[in-house]
Amino acid sequence: MFENRYDEYRQRFNVVLEKFCSEFTCRPKILEDSIKYSLNLGGKRFRPVLVYAVGDLLGVELDSLDDFALALELIHTYSLIHDDLPDMDNDDFRRGKPSNHKVFGNGNAILAGDGLLNTAYAVLFTAMRRGVGYIDASQYICDCAGVNGMIAGQAADLYYANSQKPDKRALDFIYLNKTAKLISAAVLVPSLLLGGKYFSELKFYGENLGILFQICDDILDVEGNFELLGKSIGKDEKEGKYTAIGLYGLNETKIQADMLASRVKAILEGIEGDTEFLSKLTDFVRDRSN
Amino acid sequence: MFENRYDEYRQRFNVVLEKFCSEFTCRPKILEDSIKYSLNLGGKRFRPVLVYAVGDLLGVELDSLDDFALALELIHTYSLIHDDLPDMDNDDFRRGKPSNHKVFGNGNAILAGDGLLNTAYAVLFTAMRRGVGYIDASQYICDCAGVNGMIAGQAADLYYANSQKPDKRALDFIYLNKTAKLISAAVLVPSLLLGGKYFSELKFYGENLGILFQICDDILDVEGNFELLGKSIGKDEKEGKYTAIGLYGLNETKIQADMLASRVKAILEGIEGDTEFLSKLTDFVRDRSN
Repeated sequence: MFENRYDEYRQRFNVVLEKFCSEFTCRPKILEDSIKYSLNLGGKRFRPVLVYAVGDLLGVELDSLDDFALALELIHTYSLIHDDLPDMDNDDFRRGKPSNHKVFGNGNAILAGDGLLNTAYAVLFTAMRRGVGYIDASQYICDCAGVNGMIAGQAADLYYANSQKPDKRALDFIYLNKTAKLISAAVLVPSLLLGGKYFSELKFYGENLGILFQICDDILDVEGNFELLGKSIGKDEKEGKYTAIGLYGLNETKIQADMLASRVKAILEGIEGDTEFLSKLTDFVRDRSN
Repeated sequence: MFENRYDEYRQRFNVVLEKFCSEFTCRPKILEDSIKYSLNLGGKRFRPVLVYAVGDLLGVELDSLDDFALALELIHTYSLIHDDLPDMDNDDFRRGKPSNHKVFGNGNAILAGDGLLNTAYAVLFTAMRRGVGYIDASQYICDCAGVNGMIAGQAADLYYANSQKPDKRALDFIYLNKTAKLISAAVLVPSLLLGGKYFSELKFYGENLGILFQICDDILDVEGNFELLGKSIGKDEKEGKYTAIGLYGLNETKIQADMLASRVKAILEGIEGDTEFLSKLTDFVRDRSN
């Protein structure tokens, strides 16, 4: 069953994260506390789940994927901490709890984010000793997280906020870079460990699943429930954010999301093996409430 | 002559940086501009100079060190951008020009810093293909820049500001981590490419040179000249910063700096080859006016 398997992957990752946190120390204590606070806010662990699911599909030992799952979650967590800062999205809540900077202060939140990003690479350096495929996968994560990936998306998001009406090209750029590239990195790690097996199919799957993820995030910002979502609702419009809903309207955005979900599932037909979980994961993204 | 050789290394690095900048593009333009703005503010290029100088001492081809010099300068530059933010040290000037966030805004400055840190690892990923020594050197940089290195030092600096009178242990922790570890990484890169040649001597040299560098920074904050220094003077006291001068007083701090400089130079006697440049570099750090 889809839910059971999702939970198995998430549980696997939570054990990895727990071990990491139990061994992770740094001074001053406030730096350690703020890093662990954000890592332990829970969450769907969507990127680790993707790494493991694609690993199972391609026959990669899950043990060899733990470091990548961890590095991706560290990078994702740093991006949320910096994104929530008053100078960025200014969000007081994350996963139903006060944002990192509300608890530890803005300065510490900046440093906790920096520390998580740097620690992601420290984790990958250990993995890289195992061979060239590990360097390939690590480098791909780096590219997707960087100035032609996630950071570009964040900067574009900031740049276009409160500007003129969204246009399709700018919006596509934001969705692909801000959200979809890191998600596609999660999907492509197992492929790169095998020299790029099903690379183009999985790249299409990962990037478009990521775009779908962001579109549904924007829909939830309009229609979601604070209790379920754990973060403020209606912020996009208030902050003048550039979203699909601003460009297409809510109904048209939902129709596009459904069409995109179909295309994402269709690409899986070109991959041999049991792709059912990845297909259902697409529906999960489309139908999620948090 | 010392000055000529310093300039040669700096010139070499400026060519590397110029090439990097000419090839570096990202969108939106403001992200690219803010990253290049801070990289091109000039500066002593102290870490790159150290990499090349130790490389020459140990007989490492300087061509193989360019990526490391670049990565270290990218990391140093990111740390300055984040450190200057209002939520951190709140400094409006850097190298005589407006700080990054004064030109591009706080949100963009956070992202420019994130982007520089991530790009440093992108540069190192290319270098790492050349062999295990390159992974060792890259990993050492990562450790020195991270939560048990520079970021810990920044967090401690923030934590102790405006707290009680400095104590020696806390101050030593701040100086070693905030400043000295990344400088020691620059010194140790060539050693690690050779499997750790003169590792312990060079570690002592690098870390203590770095501590000296920070002590002299604190002296310059009291006695320096804005025109020469290019940043605000007297900020440490105003911000309640934890410095050697607060603990020992100005005169005693100067005596300690001179004693430390002597110890730094003495360790070089245990290294075969022409260590004169590294010895004079110690005097340069002690006597500098910017």
